[in-house]
Formats: sequence, structure tokens, C-alpha cells
Amino acid sequence: MPQKATFYHAGCSVCADAENVLAKSLDPKQFDIEIVHLGESRGRIAEAEAAGVKSVPALVIAGRPYHINHGADLAALK
Amino acid sequence: MPQKATFYHAGCSVCADAENVLAKSLDPKQFDIEIVHLGESRGRIAEAEAAGVKSVPALVIAGRPYHINHGADLAALK
Repeated sequence: MPQKATFYHAGCSVCADAENVLAKSLDPKQFDIEIVHLGESRGRIAEAEAAGVKSVPALVIAGRPYHINHGADLAALK
Repeated sequence: MPQKATFYHAGCSVCADAENVLAKSLDPKQFDIEIVHLGESRGRIAEAEAAGVKSVPALVIAGRPYHINHGADLAALK
């Protein structure tokens, strides 16, 4: 069964590029990917923070954060 | 035909984790992934730099650099 992967972004250009190229490059057999726009879903910022996300875009796989380049600090979205 | 993706690392723990989790998560139908240890293959640092890589671990897809978390600056490997 695919494991969950969550891609957090904030609609920034760095985020959009990472989403288009990297989030869509994950193996669909391995992952069930959810894309979360933290600017629109501010209620999920705490969940991202709890997973260790410090900036977006970031991918959380198996509960671990992978920051991809740097679009915006999470603090700037609050 | 799969396109080329290059994962540059330097054997650091952040690199190893990114390799184990992220580099191995790419869709093998979409990508042909090459793993390059820049500490052992210093001759390829220039190629990574030319693709815009500033730190490792980093993934280069379609000629664009995606820095994943931060292990070491490329400058530190020279």
C-alpha cells in the first residue's frame, strides 16, 4: 500500500516549480501524495510545524521533513 | 524514455537520509537516477555548480537544482 507523502507549499513560484517537477516525480506506486497550500489552509500550519517543516516548499515523507529549495519561512505564513 | 535525474551528495548524514528516502522515491518510470558522491568525484563539482547546485544533498532534474535540506555547501567540498 502506498505510504502518505505531504507536499506543503504557499503558492510561491519556488513552490510551484517544486510541485510541478519534484512532487509529481514521486513514484505513485510508493506514495499517495497530498498537496497542501498553507496560505489557504492555515489550520494545517501546526501539523507541518510538528513534522519539522521550517519553510516551504517542503515534502514530509514518513514523518520527516525535506525542505526543497526555499520559498518562504513557515513563520511568514502565520 | 526516462529522463535523467542526478542526486549529488557528499556522504554526510543529511545526504544519506535524503538519498534513502527521497532519491529512492522518484518514479523509476519517469527517471533514470544517477547518484554522485562529490567528495569522491571532485571532478564533477563543476558540473553540479553549472546546474546551479549550491549545497548537498541536491537533486538536478531537467537541468534545475532542487536543494534538499542542507548538509554541506558545495564550496566546502573543493
